[in-house]
Amino acid sequence: MQKKPVLLTGASGALGRMLARELGAAGYTLRLTDISPFPDPLPAGAKFVRADLNEALAIVRQAEGCGTILHFGGNATEQPFETIIEPNIRGLYHIYEAARREGARLVFASSNHTIGFHERPKGNEAKLDFDCQFRPDGYYGLSKVYGELMGRLYWDKHGVENVNVRIGSCTPKPMNARALSTWLSYPDLARMMIRCIEAERVGHSVIWGASNNPATFWGKDHRDRIGWQPQDNAEDYRAEIEGKVSGDPVEERYQGGFYTPIEYSRKGGFSPRDAFDLD
Amino acid sequence: MQKKPVLLTGASGALGRMLARELGAAGYTLRLTDISPFPDPLPAGAKFVRADLNEALAIVRQAEGCGTILHFGGNATEQPFETIIEPNIRGLYHIYEAARREGARLVFASSNHTIGFHERPKGNEAKLDFDCQFRPDGYYGLSKVYGELMGRLYWDKHGVENVNVRIGSCTPKPMNARALSTWLSYPDLARMMIRCIEAERVGHSVIWGASNNPATFWGKDHRDRIGWQPQDNAEDYRAEIEGKVSGDPVEERYQGGFYTPIEYSRKGGFSPRDAFDLD
Amino acid sequence: MQKKPVLLTGASGALGRMLARELGAAGYTLRLTDISPFPDPLPAGAKFVRADLNEALAIVRQAEGCGTILHFGGNATEQPFETIIEPNIRGLYHIYEAARREGARLVFASSNHTIGFHERPKGNEAKLDFDCQFRPDGYYGLSKVYGELMGRLYWDKHGVENVNVRIGSCTPKPMNARALSTWLSYPDLARMMIRCIEAERVGHSVIWGASNNPATFWGKDHRDRIGWQPQDNAEDYRAEIEGKVSGDPVEERYQGGFYTPIEYSRKGGFSPRDAFDLD
Amino acid sequence: MQKKPVLLTGASGALGRMLARELGAAGYTLRLTDISPFPDPLPAGAKFVRADLNEALAIVRQAEGCGTILHFGGNATEQPFETIIEPNIRGLYHIYEAARREGARLVFASSNHTIGFHERPKGNEAKLDFDCQFRPDGYYGLSKVYGELMGRLYWDKHGVENVNVRIGSCTPKPMNARALSTWLSYPDLARMMIRCIEAERVGHSVIWGASNNPATFWGKDHRDRIGWQPQDNAEDYRAEIEGKVSGDPVEERYQGGFYTPIEYSRKGGFSPRDAFDLD
Amino acid sequence: MQKKPVLLTGASGALGRMLARELGAAGYTLRLTDISPFPDPLPAGAKFVRADLNEALAIVRQAEGCGTILHFGGNATEQPFETIIEPNIRGLYHIYEAARREGARLVFASSNHTIGFHERPKGNEAKLDFDCQFRPDGYYGLSKVYGELMGRLYWDKHGVENVNVRIGSCTPKPMNARALSTWLSYPDLARMMIRCIEAERVGHSVIWGASNNPATFWGKDHRDRIGWQPQDNAEDYRAEIEGKVSGDPVEERYQGGFYTPIEYSRKGGFSPRDAFDLD
Amino acid sequence: MQKKPVLLTGASGALGRMLARELGAAGYTLRLTDISPFPDPLPAGAKFVRADLNEALAIVRQAEGCGTILHFGGNATEQPFETIIEPNIRGLYHIYEAARREGARLVFASSNHTIGFHERPKGNEAKLDFDCQFRPDGYYGLSKVYGELMGRLYWDKHGVENVNVRIGSCTPKPMNARALSTWLSYPDLARMMIRCIEAERVGHSVIWGASNNPATFWGKDHRDRIGWQPQDNAEDYRAEIEGKVSGDPVEERYQGGFYTPIEYSRKGGFSPRDAFDLD
Repeated sequence: MQKKPVLLTGASGALGRMLARELGAAGYTLRLTDISPFPDPLPAGAKFVRADLNEALAIVRQAEGCGTILHFGGNATEQPFETIIEPNIRGLYHIYEAARREGARLVFASSNHTIGFHERPKGNEAKLDFDCQFRPDGYYGLSKVYGELMGRLYWDKHGVENVNVRIGSCTPKPMNARALSTWLSYPDLARMMIRCIEAERVGHSVIWGASNNPATFWGKDHRDRIGWQPQDNAEDYRAEIEGKVSGDPVEERYQGGFYTPIEYSRKGGFSPRDAFDLD
Repeated sequence: MQKKPVLLTGASGALGRMLARELGAAGYTLRLTDISPFPDPLPAGAKFVRADLNEALAIVRQAEGCGTILHFGGNATEQPFETIIEPNIRGLYHIYEAARREGARLVFASSNHTIGFHERPKGNEAKLDFDCQFRPDGYYGLSKVYGELMGRLYWDKHGVENVNVRIGSCTPKPMNARALSTWLSYPDLARMMIRCIEAERVGHSVIWGASNNPATFWGKDHRDRIGWQPQDNAEDYRAEIEGKVSGDPVEERYQGGFYTPIEYSRKGGFSPRDAFDLD
Repeated sequence: MQKKPVLLTGASGALGRMLARELGAAGYTLRLTDISPFPDPLPAGAKFVRADLNEALAIVRQAEGCGTILHFGGNATEQPFETIIEPNIRGLYHIYEAARREGARLVFASSNHTIGFHERPKGNEAKLDFDCQFRPDGYYGLSKVYGELMGRLYWDKHGVENVNVRIGSCTPKPMNARALSTWLSYPDLARMMIRCIEAERVGHSVIWGASNNPATFWGKDHRDRIGWQPQDNAEDYRAEIEGKVSGDPVEERYQGGFYTPIEYSRKGGFSPRDAFDLD
Repeated sequence: MQKKPVLLTGASGALGRMLARELGAAGYTLRLTDISPFPDPLPAGAKFVRADLNEALAIVRQAEGCGTILHFGGNATEQPFETIIEPNIRGLYHIYEAARREGARLVFASSNHTIGFHERPKGNEAKLDFDCQFRPDGYYGLSKVYGELMGRLYWDKHGVENVNVRIGSCTPKPMNARALSTWLSYPDLARMMIRCIEAERVGHSVIWGASNNPATFWGKDHRDRIGWQPQDNAEDYRAEIEGKVSGDPVEERYQGGFYTPIEYSRKGGFSPRDAFDLD
Repeated sequence: MQKKPVLLTGASGALGRMLARELGAAGYTLRLTDISPFPDPLPAGAKFVRADLNEALAIVRQAEGCGTILHFGGNATEQPFETIIEPNIRGLYHIYEAARREGARLVFASSNHTIGFHERPKGNEAKLDFDCQFRPDGYYGLSKVYGELMGRLYWDKHGVENVNVRIGSCTPKPMNARALSTWLSYPDLARMMIRCIEAERVGHSVIWGASNNPATFWGKDHRDRIGWQPQDNAEDYRAEIEGKVSGDPVEERYQGGFYTPIEYSRKGGFSPRDAFDLD
Repeated sequence: MQKKPVLLTGASGALGRMLARELGAAGYTLRLTDISPFPDPLPAGAKFVRADLNEALAIVRQAEGCGTILHFGGNATEQPFETIIEPNIRGLYHIYEAARREGARLVFASSNHTIGFHERPKGNEAKLDFDCQFRPDGYYGLSKVYGELMGRLYWDKHGVENVNVRIGSCTPKPMNARALSTWLSYPDLARMMIRCIEAERVGHSVIWGASNNPATFWGKDHRDRIGWQPQDNAEDYRAEIEGKVSGDPVEERYQGGFYTPIEYSRKGGFSPRDAFDLD
């Protein structure tokens, strides 16, 4: 088991708090950081430092001596560009410099919104593999693409290992029909993080962050490198959620769901593909 | 012929000055902008406004009424992250918002450094197609990836057409052995820009910015959409340049050339691929 | 009736909330924005976006497609200069650029504090007409003068129509003796806003924002251009308020009331006019 | 003669250098400041400190012990708003706070561009008096209005005396036909500054900054308060300049000259007054 | 008794609130300021203005007319450097410029953390005098050193008098064993502040901020200049607190207590002195 | 001989250029950095990176792998506070964090202006030892005190070794009478730097940066720790310089020379010591 401390950013968010609890219980030495106070009792041996991702040395200093950084900090929803750039672009750079300095492995909370403008597969259509084209569905998704490719760069240039988890819908229970495809259970995420920490070698890896859902949109990825398989299944909740669909044709057509039509300026669910045959 | 004015950013740089001259001579109404003064006589009908890409409304205002934006502004070489983020990330956002507001087409000076960590093909190895994986070779290249994918986003979400030209080595003459593969002549670039302006439909397109070089690294792209074929050929200069190779094994192995080993912290030309078989 | 959406800034303030409710009830399609969350249920068809007036493109984007902008955002009381300049000067510029881009009409919540250092008229003395000299009584009032004259500039230079309402004391009920002259009832303001939206032509107009108070300080303005007449009357509250006067001779002498002596550095109610006959 | 030092901001500009020379020769103790180095030999007893108008205490400190501040600093031509706001709005506030702290008199280099959108008088039409409506012709002119009215505020509230000189065209010789009306000779400006320093009382005054030109656009002002009369006359240069007119109908119609059509977005010299009868 | 108003910064903190109450009761005219609202009823004649220490002129303006400034504002605990620099370094400069302008005396809430890395005296070892070497124990303590020496500079260069109080542990009751040496009672602090205000001459003085504790770490200082003697004694609480010691050998060795081991990167209580004989 | 690279900041300044040349010639591997371009040919094996001391990670990155940092960067003369704080306070923190991360030794170009308000010794008066009271003579000197004491803190808390050289007057030849006491020759400085690099242990040391001048103001310091003795002597230039004295009584009284009377606001060479007997 990894002996060096694990730094968890975004520790005061919903996923951060769950991971702090689960990783603490699993015996990891945790360093927690967030721009907001940590609202829970600290796990045994854990230390929390409040810091802003924009303050370069305050962030770099948190990472000293750590073997793994789980980067869940930054804005986690679609926002105006000006709200995204500081934590998700500049802050990410600080995190990668910290990882490089420490020789630490970085696990990056990426998102399905990096590929949200791919259409949902119909029937037997092919699922989307990890090496598909990026099609971000907003400034948030675009910042996550940037993060994945900074990981590509730091691996190629500096040998910093990183795992990029394209998280689907990570909530205690699936919330709507789309989540039959995209749900990631809390236990599946916690188990994945442990494997990301423990795996011998990861290079630059990409993993679809979804549970074992039969209706998944997604295919091949690097989960074998870390030795993870999801165990939960959104089908257990089908009765509750399969009727929960929006009436928005754009939202229901694309994988990114309700992020895709935000501030959509065209009338009537216009899609570029309707206009002519360039994709 | 396109009647609306064409906005050219980065007009005071080497490529900007050449394009201002050529497009002016071809009869386009030009609006030129740069953070530095424009050093040449203005083409007939052209207007130059000095502006910083960071000033949102100053930039957006330059684009009013324009039908095409040729975005050559921002930092054009590898630099510390802090020097890149403002013009190349924030400034790019201003440019895309301008294009969206005007319904203008955007032509983006992207770079081969978006894919610089792909190895150079040997012998009959397959060439790299436009839809290959991104492998940026520095903060500069990563900012260009960001720009290409903001183009993908604005096309998918707002219907803003954009052409992303992954410029190789655009100099009056090819300068070293690598340029046998990567050279883009000034006339070929100027002709490409005219086709980008005039093409009926472009959607989100990617074009390799190289002349008709037999030793090219690159294969398929969207040049047919705009109706462009390069006419110049680096082989005409082979005698002068084929001996001009660096001794750096990293530089000579990867497509990005001397950007790839910059600040490389490992000894002896280490490549992650040498370490184990994850790419 | 105006069909294009109406953008209301400062929507989460007291006047903003009242106007959102009244204009929503009157059938207008509202876009609401504020730096603070909107605390009320959204009117039917209304959309709220949280934004800072300092973020140029975030503001400009709210205005897209709107036919009228009711600008009630920014600081609404006397504050240190440093607190005023960003929202009330820079933010105002963003709003006017938005109006220019959209060809929208701007209605500006100006203030009696633009002319607060005029003395209150005694007996039959002449009332103050809209084209009187500006005499701001603080940084706040001075920022409102700046706003009115940016309206003058955008009308003269760009044809942007604007109505500048010099609001007196806009509260549910009049609060003190001065309000016998300066009170503006909520219904009178709401009716005025509807007329500002609906009027055929307004050019650059100035309107005194007071109800039908016999003791008013103010005379001629452009209310006929928009077809508005106030219906309420502060005299209905005379018994409650006529004794509510401060003991401050500066406050009671000038129209701006208690803003005028703030940080007044001279002893004993000194007025420059007392010193010699230059005004 | 005024014994306290005179602070001159903008000392390294064309007018600043001339005034430094003339006031130095007249025996005043000068403190000079500018964001650029002072290019000339220092007058006897003068001291130059390089400072940015944006640095509050650096500016306030220059004024210590001074009896008069001649404020010629800041941007002196039409510029994008973002370039104007810091020196001309924030910097002006620093200057006025300095004057208040010292009990100093402020002489402000205002401009004819505060009223540039008034039409030029034809034939026997009335000339414009100092208390006319403000009609700024750009962001520069608007910043000068702001400065004049901050003077109004500081006089009314704090008893800070100030003279606001609406400078016409202050050049060694008149340059074009418009200057027959607007020219201010260097000697006339220098003499006016000495009167501004020496006058016993000025309150809040406004003076048209033009020489004794028969074709002037301007009428009444407060020159008698300071005891100044211009002595030079643009008619002496009529032969050289009367043919120098632009072909632009907007420029030639309004007092502000070529500032008025800058970025004018309407076709064919459109004026709002042409459209309907609201001014 | 000092007749000019007393400015108290940091008025909304624990010590600030106590001093506002006590000095108000003692009859001083108070001006209170803080970045946070003042939570208590205002003492008679007191005025509170909310302001940020970073806003130069807003701060300088609070001090106008004051004869003494009690500077308790800024960060009062160990924090990342980035959190300290703005209020404690830049803000301090604003305060000293205010004092210089007013000819006011400055009383600075310095701290024992300016000398926190001196060892605690054992047995009969010499106590620390005011002119000992500085040995700050963190960024906070270092900012307090900076403040004391800015006081030294402003006295030497500008004749600004200042008293620097190296506060020990100022709490209603002593809290742990270390406080037997370092406790400063609220009444002792309040009496000291009154003496700082009333003393005829102070020059640049340094006073140990502790009550009359027999176990004190500290010896000579300038208390005779102001005529102050502490009256309270931590021994009265010995039974409650003498067992309250941490187990940390670094913390218990040095005067600065638990600040000294914060982020200490060496194992096992390493002290540089252990390593070799350089101090 | 030290094998790790030596980082030299401020490399493009006068002392930096001399040291780059001398240390390069002595065989050290140099990394050079400055905010301005390096104007000389690079010594063999040296690398220059242009960087701003304010950019935290750009600075920290220069130091990677270095064993010694010679910190000559930042402002090197008296300047307004606002000009000093960013490079000399914030930038210094970046440098110390870099040293801590690398376990590097820091050599800090401190200054005699840290003690400039001590009087010059007369006749046989005692010379000033390294552990005298700080008496900075301006914002520059105060920033150097801050730097020395950050060194004290990083040694006490983090074991970062540092040598603080209080440079006197380091010029090719002595320039005035004061330099008979304060001159430091270029060769003496270069030899001292080599000893700072090579010395086995330095802890936190302070060295007077003056040549072997009989008229020195300064006494004991830590030069024996590094094994350095100056070899040059200002007396060799006595004939040229002994008459070069200013007429300013403040300047000639204090060790800091002409920095001490800068912006001195009292008349007639006032010294606080004249006023009463508090020092």
